[in-house]
Amino acid sequence: MASKSFYAVVAGVGSGTGRSVALRFAQSYPVVLLARKPESYSDIASEINKQGGQAFGITADTSDPQSVTAAFEAIKKKLPDKKLAAAIYNVGAGFAIKPFLEVNVSDLDASLNSNVRGLFNFAQSTLPLLLSSATTHTPVYPPTLIITGATASIRGSARFGTFAAGKFAVRGLGQSLAREFGPQGVHVAHVIIDGVIDTPRTKAWEVNGGVEGGKLDPDAIAESYWHLHTQPRSSFTQELDLRPYVEKF
Amino acid sequence: MASKSFYAVVAGVGSGTGRSVALRFAQSYPVVLLARKPESYSDIASEINKQGGQAFGITADTSDPQSVTAAFEAIKKKLPDKKLAAAIYNVGAGFAIKPFLEVNVSDLDASLNSNVRGLFNFAQSTLPLLLSSATTHTPVYPPTLIITGATASIRGSARFGTFAAGKFAVRGLGQSLAREFGPQGVHVAHVIIDGVIDTPRTKAWEVNGGVEGGKLDPDAIAESYWHLHTQPRSSFTQELDLRPYVEKF
Amino acid sequence: MASKSFYAVVAGVGSGTGRSVALRFAQSYPVVLLARKPESYSDIASEINKQGGQAFGITADTSDPQSVTAAFEAIKKKLPDKKLAAAIYNVGAGFAIKPFLEVNVSDLDASLNSNVRGLFNFAQSTLPLLLSSATTHTPVYPPTLIITGATASIRGSARFGTFAAGKFAVRGLGQSLAREFGPQGVHVAHVIIDGVIDTPRTKAWEVNGGVEGGKLDPDAIAESYWHLHTQPRSSFTQELDLRPYVEKF
Amino acid sequence: MASKSFYAVVAGVGSGTGRSVALRFAQSYPVVLLARKPESYSDIASEINKQGGQAFGITADTSDPQSVTAAFEAIKKKLPDKKLAAAIYNVGAGFAIKPFLEVNVSDLDASLNSNVRGLFNFAQSTLPLLLSSATTHTPVYPPTLIITGATASIRGSARFGTFAAGKFAVRGLGQSLAREFGPQGVHVAHVIIDGVIDTPRTKAWEVNGGVEGGKLDPDAIAESYWHLHTQPRSSFTQELDLRPYVEKF
Repeated sequence: MASKSFYAVVAGVGSGTGRSVALRFAQSYPVVLLARKPESYSDIASEINKQGGQAFGITADTSDPQSVTAAFEAIKKKLPDKKLAAAIYNVGAGFAIKPFLEVNVSDLDASLNSNVRGLFNFAQSTLPLLLSSATTHTPVYPPTLIITGATASIRGSARFGTFAAGKFAVRGLGQSLAREFGPQGVHVAHVIIDGVIDTPRTKAWEVNGGVEGGKLDPDAIAESYWHLHTQPRSSFTQELDLRPYVEKF
Repeated sequence: MASKSFYAVVAGVGSGTGRSVALRFAQSYPVVLLARKPESYSDIASEINKQGGQAFGITADTSDPQSVTAAFEAIKKKLPDKKLAAAIYNVGAGFAIKPFLEVNVSDLDASLNSNVRGLFNFAQSTLPLLLSSATTHTPVYPPTLIITGATASIRGSARFGTFAAGKFAVRGLGQSLAREFGPQGVHVAHVIIDGVIDTPRTKAWEVNGGVEGGKLDPDAIAESYWHLHTQPRSSFTQELDLRPYVEKF
Repeated sequence: MASKSFYAVVAGVGSGTGRSVALRFAQSYPVVLLARKPESYSDIASEINKQGGQAFGITADTSDPQSVTAAFEAIKKKLPDKKLAAAIYNVGAGFAIKPFLEVNVSDLDASLNSNVRGLFNFAQSTLPLLLSSATTHTPVYPPTLIITGATASIRGSARFGTFAAGKFAVRGLGQSLAREFGPQGVHVAHVIIDGVIDTPRTKAWEVNGGVEGGKLDPDAIAESYWHLHTQPRSSFTQELDLRPYVEKF
Repeated sequence: MASKSFYAVVAGVGSGTGRSVALRFAQSYPVVLLARKPESYSDIASEINKQGGQAFGITADTSDPQSVTAAFEAIKKKLPDKKLAAAIYNVGAGFAIKPFLEVNVSDLDASLNSNVRGLFNFAQSTLPLLLSSATTHTPVYPPTLIITGATASIRGSARFGTFAAGKFAVRGLGQSLAREFGPQGVHVAHVIIDGVIDTPRTKAWEVNGGVEGGKLDPDAIAESYWHLHTQPRSSFTQELDLRPYVEKF
């Protein structure tokens, strides 16, 4: 099976989308989990390994170029013979909803760092590997970089300025990467998650009247990420949105 | 199996997307094929029936309200106990690329009729059925209306005015339907097909330098339509694009 | 003064944008007013003529090609020596806000006719004249076609399906015309009017909490149309939005 | 004349848009010019003062919060009795067109700093002043913040990734500011300049076949900025595009 020769890497795992994506991709690939703190990835790695998959975590801060470089050196040592099939960028803190005159430049920097600087560093490390997979190997599916976006990727709402700055920037960079690397066989896709994700952290939130399905099921998000990965190069999606059926948009 | 109680209908079958979508959905549902001429659907119906699926065609002109009403009355007679799981609107002629001062109002009408008037009629007939499936039955997947769009759905290029008029209109109507029927449990999605589809008709066309994968494989398009259909209501996609990896955009 | 040799035509005059645009352009040009009923234009023509401008009305239904052709033949007889400087398409009825299953195809047709078919006919008659002005004469400002859009031009809201269909179509056609005729020196611009216009008909409407400036002042809209007309060809705007400062968007 | 009580500030003056905007607004207001180097503003200030206007420059790096704060303290000392009528953010270096794997994180930072961090700092200093003008004084026109964008504000082209990141971010932040401060009476507008501006630096560039009007005349850009400033609050434009008539888009 081709998947034995390939692996996936997910940056930004925790209790929501990142965890579900890791579990979904682990059905086909060994999965490397990146997070700033071991407690964000250790349970997920255990869960995957227990289910017969293969996973390990690396502590890394994607906003720091050195940290990302070090992470990929560590991956190379751990998986010397494997090629990268899929890279998912799911980092994105810096979510401050405040009147503009109450935020300060460090809020902006937090958003830019975790969103666009992080994607930049992650893409610098993963795209050479994805290109190599595309050109010199025979992956089952085209090598893929998937980027998690949000409502704020396409809409700058009042009091979301610093978050929108980071998310718009990610979308712009992602589009540029899609246009540069698509013709080289690497699929770059951007997913606009428009709603609240159903995670332990949001369990108590009353969203969309509390109806079932009113929050995004992260496993469903992961299924769409997997679908993106399986698209053949004759039919790439660059962008799709995902939202609960009752979400206003 | 739930699919025994449900069926799918595809309007606009021929040699490309419509055929592939019909074949894909026929793996799970009986499929009804609508086209203006029997020669457009008869081979596809035979192919599906030979493969152990179930399909039949009905001659209908979606731009004509009476014709669409009659088609769904005929479906009801043929499949009295089945509920509608998925409706795909894939009609869209009226593709005249001409300097604006050389087109005439009949070119515009041809585009509006096959694109937006047809969708209107098809949606008037299918949405009550999809709503009924959503609320009183237990479909495996949320009932779905999928609409085929094109580059001209989001871009009015020079000399594509009448085609863009029809395609923009379809997108506007589709968005409106998504916002009205999504909260009622019916998934309405719009797919922007941005490139030339690989069909017998386009076989000889030199597209994107003639590279493999330079045209959209209709089977790959169909796979994305199927993915849309399978999305649970906590995670609906309203719009996605599909294009060959080498396509400029 | 160059304006003595040129005229402007406004399709769709009544009590709002059309009237204000006519008055504004009448400061520089003789203005021809098109409307389906004389009562829509007669007062405006009188008002302009009383103020020392020059204006007359022609009864025409822009959705009917023959009617539009006849109108421009009548204009030619009335203004045999004048060239067209600016054409404004401000027609757009078909505004039915209803649940989709309560509208019927005649609602759709009403929207398509007054919006996109009307623009098509108007553009077929005016673009040859605007091109002629651009290439063989020396207008003060580049010959201009300005099209009135609405919120529904870029957003298909629930229960606005037929209206959105017409408005999206207009936007698609307008973009296409801009891309084809811009390089030939004709400026085609689309204006998204996002809010309620302050007219006698809307006087009693409580909009945006009833605050002053909560509805669009049609004279302010007209000022932006005039600005578009005065843009030199090195710096054309294709699209702008206009909304009250308190409007949610 | 009300303008005696008000002033305008332009960040990012040099030989193109910033200079023309300063000259245009100087017809009505004293103008403060911000640039990182005195040679960028000194000639413009002289030119305005010679023509009977009033202008002075302040050396400031908008990407540095302290530098911006200091600049506005200096303005307050120089113009203690004047209120801010208009603030224009026209900074935006970081324009590196390179294959993604040849750029590094300092290219990204340069783009983010000059584009979105600079706008953030500038907006933090100017919005309180604009708000004060809107609420406690009677400006002739609604107080205005105008932001210069580019093609890369809405399109991430191949090899433009770092520039697009900065420009998308600016657009997202600008939208957010428009939605927060519009209802408070401050007009925030974003201008997409889609083409090459005709400046001494670009004089030799062969653009659009070298035709006259193939580059954007910065004086024409300035005229549109002025139009935005004069819009009454019943009719604000949030975004418009500007491009040469022959520009492909």
